[in-house]
Amino acid sequence: MVKLVIRIDLGPEDHIGPGKIELLERVAELGSISAAGRSMGMSYRRAWDLIDQINRKFEKPVVAAHTGGKAGGGTKLTKFGEDLVRNYRAIAEKALRSSKANMDAINRSLRKG
Amino acid sequence: MVKLVIRIDLGPEDHIGPGKIELLERVAELGSISAAGRSMGMSYRRAWDLIDQINRKFEKPVVAAHTGGKAGGGTKLTKFGEDLVRNYRAIAEKALRSSKANMDAINRSLRKG
Repeated sequence: MVKLVIRIDLGPEDHIGPGKIELLERVAELGSISAAGRSMGMSYRRAWDLIDQINRKFEKPVVAAHTGGKAGGGTKLTKFGEDLVRNYRAIAEKALRSSKANMDAINRSLRKG
Repeated sequence: MVKLVIRIDLGPEDHIGPGKIELLERVAELGSISAAGRSMGMSYRRAWDLIDQINRKFEKPVVAAHTGGKAGGGTKLTKFGEDLVRNYRAIAEKALRSSKANMDAINRSLRKG
């Protein structure tokens, strides 16, 4: 089964794809970079590096510390981080919808088994 | 300036992206795998490997030998190869069109300089 993947190149060496976007979504959901990374099988260091790669390319950061609450603080997405995820998901969803006939044609040509 | 890149995953290790599609287009244009590869700064071996990666995933090959003519033969795209390029380009073009507002928003957030 073929699968459409959307990548946004930010420069010659930097891009945003499904991996970084999923990581941001898990930070939003789990409230912590280490928990988000762990849920995707990566170290805190690796998860932070990926988020830092995004931060360095934009004027505003995608994550911020938040303090207090039952969990005693953690990390959340900024407004910009939420916008970035939303823009990526909108691009991917529209591309998936408009490519259906072409993707089906490619899929039918795949070698079986 | 951000740039949208479309990748089609054919399996866990195989995908088609702008590089392989450009290579196929250059084979169509130049009538030779070695000339196509050379025009993109890659060896014949590398160009053939990329084409072979595609061929192994589909029921029909994307290139075929053609004999005769002034140049004394060479390589051309098969009907399936042409269809594959056409489907990829159609997907990329529609994605580019439908993503414009979202890509503009991401672009405006990029760090300057």
